[in-house]
Amino acid sequence: MTDKYELTMLQAALKDGTAHRECAFEVFSRRLPSERRYGVVGGTERLVRAVEHFVFTDEQLSQLDFLDDRTREFLRDFRFQGQIDGYREGELYFPYSPILTVRGTFAECVILETVILSIMNSDSAVASAAARMVTAADGRPIIEMGSRRTQEYQAVTAARAAYLAGFAATSNLEAAQRYGIPASGTAAHAWTLLHINDDGTPNEAAAFKAQIDALGIDTTLLVDTYDIARGVRTAIEVAGPELGGVRIDSGDLGALTRRVRAQLDELGAINTKIIVSSDLDEFAIAGLRGDPVDGFGVGTSVVTGSEAPTAGLVYKLVEVNGHPVAKRSSGKAMTGGAKRALRTHRSTGVAIEEIVYPFHSEAPDTGRATDEQLTIPLMRDGQRTAVPTLEESREHLARQLTKLPWEGLALSRNEPAITTRFTGFAVTDREY
Amino acid sequence: MTDKYELTMLQAALKDGTAHRECAFEVFSRRLPSERRYGVVGGTERLVRAVEHFVFTDEQLSQLDFLDDRTREFLRDFRFQGQIDGYREGELYFPYSPILTVRGTFAECVILETVILSIMNSDSAVASAAARMVTAADGRPIIEMGSRRTQEYQAVTAARAAYLAGFAATSNLEAAQRYGIPASGTAAHAWTLLHINDDGTPNEAAAFKAQIDALGIDTTLLVDTYDIARGVRTAIEVAGPELGGVRIDSGDLGALTRRVRAQLDELGAINTKIIVSSDLDEFAIAGLRGDPVDGFGVGTSVVTGSEAPTAGLVYKLVEVNGHPVAKRSSGKAMTGGAKRALRTHRSTGVAIEEIVYPFHSEAPDTGRATDEQLTIPLMRDGQRTAVPTLEESREHLARQLTKLPWEGLALSRNEPAITTRFTGFAVTDREY
Repeated sequence: MTDKYELTMLQAALKDGTAHRECAFEVFSRRLPSERRYGVVGGTERLVRAVEHFVFTDEQLSQLDFLDDRTREFLRDFRFQGQIDGYREGELYFPYSPILTVRGTFAECVILETVILSIMNSDSAVASAAARMVTAADGRPIIEMGSRRTQEYQAVTAARAAYLAGFAATSNLEAAQRYGIPASGTAAHAWTLLHINDDGTPNEAAAFKAQIDALGIDTTLLVDTYDIARGVRTAIEVAGPELGGVRIDSGDLGALTRRVRAQLDELGAINTKIIVSSDLDEFAIAGLRGDPVDGFGVGTSVVTGSEAPTAGLVYKLVEVNGHPVAKRSSGKAMTGGAKRALRTHRSTGVAIEEIVYPFHSEAPDTGRATDEQLTIPLMRDGQRTAVPTLEESREHLARQLTKLPWEGLALSRNEPAITTRFTGFAVTDREY
Repeated sequence: MTDKYELTMLQAALKDGTAHRECAFEVFSRRLPSERRYGVVGGTERLVRAVEHFVFTDEQLSQLDFLDDRTREFLRDFRFQGQIDGYREGELYFPYSPILTVRGTFAECVILETVILSIMNSDSAVASAAARMVTAADGRPIIEMGSRRTQEYQAVTAARAAYLAGFAATSNLEAAQRYGIPASGTAAHAWTLLHINDDGTPNEAAAFKAQIDALGIDTTLLVDTYDIARGVRTAIEVAGPELGGVRIDSGDLGALTRRVRAQLDELGAINTKIIVSSDLDEFAIAGLRGDPVDGFGVGTSVVTGSEAPTAGLVYKLVEVNGHPVAKRSSGKAMTGGAKRALRTHRSTGVAIEEIVYPFHSEAPDTGRATDEQLTIPLMRDGQRTAVPTLEESREHLARQLTKLPWEGLALSRNEPAITTRFTGFAVTDREY
């Protein structure tokens, strides 16, 4: 989980004596993808564990033949001994929020860039998209079922990030086992297609009957392999009106769910749920708000961050031996110095703005009792602190979303839901 | 690497006696993302290895408490014993190309859906985007440096897929070690920012000097941390005119590279290369075709498939006990029956069309000597055949791209470069 240039920089720094300068690196994003209103911090717990276990094996070292002996010796003994502070997982973030501040020697901080950004960019992208889908679903459960649309290991961490954002369950068994997320799933079209008569003609009733025999009457039958109206009729004929649910995975889901609801009610299956899937994203989910849908299955769009597969987070050196540093590249300017942030709220609890101030300063006095400190300790001397669990982070996010100004939950493109204000920095005080 | 419904279907099939029906599943895509002209098959070698090693450990089994004993017993002994045929890695594909055909019992094929699709969707998405970038770069090398923008394990396989498509190197050390890909990388802005004087003022010259001391005169110096013109002047002052290269990572790269080329030439550094990076995709690369760029660094866009992070491949049951099966869901219709494909070419070598025909039939006689059989054996009785290596697949792709009609290499949205014709199927002969 390392890019070559991190090690070549390390080698050069060991050689010229700058390796042990005390540094602060910061993770932030310059903008929110697709002009969204907020981002969701994802991956924090995963990354502190990854940093705790970040070592170089002898086998790996033996292959780093482009390094000199001194650098390899350094890596052989390497354990991160520094400090990490930042936004907790499930926290909201906005452009230039100082999501993570990593402090230590240049040597120990510079080689963490890839592992930190990979985890945070991937998990934050999924969590940010998933949170919008949960809002759009308006209380109805969403199952994550996108494993097959993304890389086999990303599938596992994407399931975790979707659950963080409020998804109810995942199809992915490894994610269920590793992170304690509820697993869900019943049958694919292949199950119905498998059930043919000896002459090769379809036998949907046999498929439904066998599924109920194996999984019970509470199961969800997939009714759109052939003709949906006939599929629903067959399902209730086979299962009776106590059938748990039907799933529709194609077609105009609004029109179909209304028709299927009427048909189910007519057949007496008034408690049989309707689950829909088929290339749903937050906009399609919102479009079904008025329709008789009891649950959603979402695949591709959530694991790919719904058009924003990476959160655009960067990891930048902001402080060297107590001096703020910042690059001035065109379009990529930044504010030097390590930072903390707090969020102010109206007395009603609605968030007003984020205030970013120097890491070692006192928090600015806003005169409000509702300020929320956003920067918490995550690692001390290389040891993980009491980092919130996935469940705690999931609850935290749900709570934070209720504090956004109401337009902050809109799906349309626009400015960030709240502004971010910099104060106390020598170079320039800015708002974004 | 398994979705829950695969195992619940398995359990139901073991119970109703359909588990041992002889089946064929097919991997194909209904369309190419973003109306591209072709797709690139990626991940084949990885997937046959994954299927060979696809087993359930005792620890995993102990947590599958939703399954009955019989199903758990089946999984305990599980090894895929079936046959896999398909397009070789690095082959081009088009809508409805039968990229992979998996044959065996329902039980052994149905549980491979997630692992097969995860690998192929992810690797094909990256390879398909990367191939367009390689075409746009017009012979100039591209370095993959997107690890930090994608999940930490996907970073490794994305680097492999980019190399398959013709990228010259990767920043990712794990990918370099695991797949034998050349690794590349020198320094980040952090390196320049680290080098400050005691009073905190920048000292770019010290950074450049230390990098050259550690990495040699052939290294590439990043010149845009502060002012580019001054950065270039400082670089040549410190390194002399034999400097290997400079990298520009911000701003209007066309204008900047022209100006920097003139400046370098004026300073006598006529062989110093100019490398550019900064949110490049195939369109930005093509836009630099006339500019003095010697190499590209590409990150986000390649690892995220350049707006198409998944290839949209599906895994569908097409044959049961010799009978073709197909769902008829709205917008998701398909042709039943296992398939093979060949590609026909003009006498000049330019591809004309893809012909898809029944798996067990003779290849149709096109009257042309230039037909190319696309379906090759990949696994026999659960054992991998002589699957081409990554290097062989990389060469194969480069060769296949030269056979596309010239408009097939265009970056603009349009129809697939060649049509796909179905012949010999009972239900319907179709063209896409």
